[in-house]
Amino acid sequence: MNFDESCFYCTKDRVLDELMLKVCSLQASTVYLFKDQSYYGRCVVALKEHKRELFELDSEELTTFMSEVSRVAGAINKLFLPDKINYAIYGDQVSHLHFHIVPKYKNGLLWGKPFGNNPDGKKILDNEEYDELINLLIQNLKI
Amino acid sequence: MNFDESCFYCTKDRVLDELMLKVCSLQASTVYLFKDQSYYGRCVVALKEHKRELFELDSEELTTFMSEVSRVAGAINKLFLPDKINYAIYGDQVSHLHFHIVPKYKNGLLWGKPFGNNPDGKKILDNEEYDELINLLIQNLKI
Repeated sequence: MNFDESCFYCTKDRVLDELMLKVCSLQASTVYLFKDQSYYGRCVVALKEHKRELFELDSEELTTFMSEVSRVAGAINKLFLPDKINYAIYGDQVSHLHFHIVPKYKNGLLWGKPFGNNPDGKKILDNEEYDELINLLIQNLKI
Repeated sequence: MNFDESCFYCTKDRVLDELMLKVCSLQASTVYLFKDQSYYGRCVVALKEHKRELFELDSEELTTFMSEVSRVAGAINKLFLPDKINYAIYGDQVSHLHFHIVPKYKNGLLWGKPFGNNPDGKKILDNEEYDELINLLIQNLKI
């Protein structure tokens, strides 16, 4: 198991906690709810292993990871009815492979453009709302 | 075969030609070189079928598509030695599934940030340079 002690996706330290909340663990990945809910339902799907690029995964790991990314996107689609979902791996500086799964809404933030920061600041929910979203996601991600 | 006659990835019309150049056809996808080479080596991998979301693909199609995305990223990595590769599906308005495969370079455009437009305008190459890049990619994508 590849592990990098300087990577917050590996150590799961406070930096991670400030950005996202764990939803559940799948076979190849961990699913997080993004705390900034400017895009309602936004999640992160992070590979468990510390790898940087898709081509570092063998075919079985890539298949499992992408089926989980697809499954999370499907759950978000069913629960929140976005008009489109955006998917992105960036990670120039935090290079541990993770997909941003970002539901986009017509008349919502940056419709028709790449998703980005909310100029009005982060949309932080209260704990009960986060718990509700996490429970909904868990129910929909059950096999 | 899903086809949408209002979609330029399906019709392969002039709008497509203005944005990108065909590199080659793989099993599930078509590979294009992005004409704006502000990120040197930038490509698009477009699904052949007209589908909007990853979860609309069955498991075999998803596996094939993602193995091709990974293969193109690996070829770009080998040829152009970027410091990181970014991968994104947006498509709020052009919803035909396609991945932007964007090599990022330290000291290059928008390092550490999501890739975006070049404020200095598009970096257009001459035809010989495009041909050279396309030939290099084809050689590296051969099975």
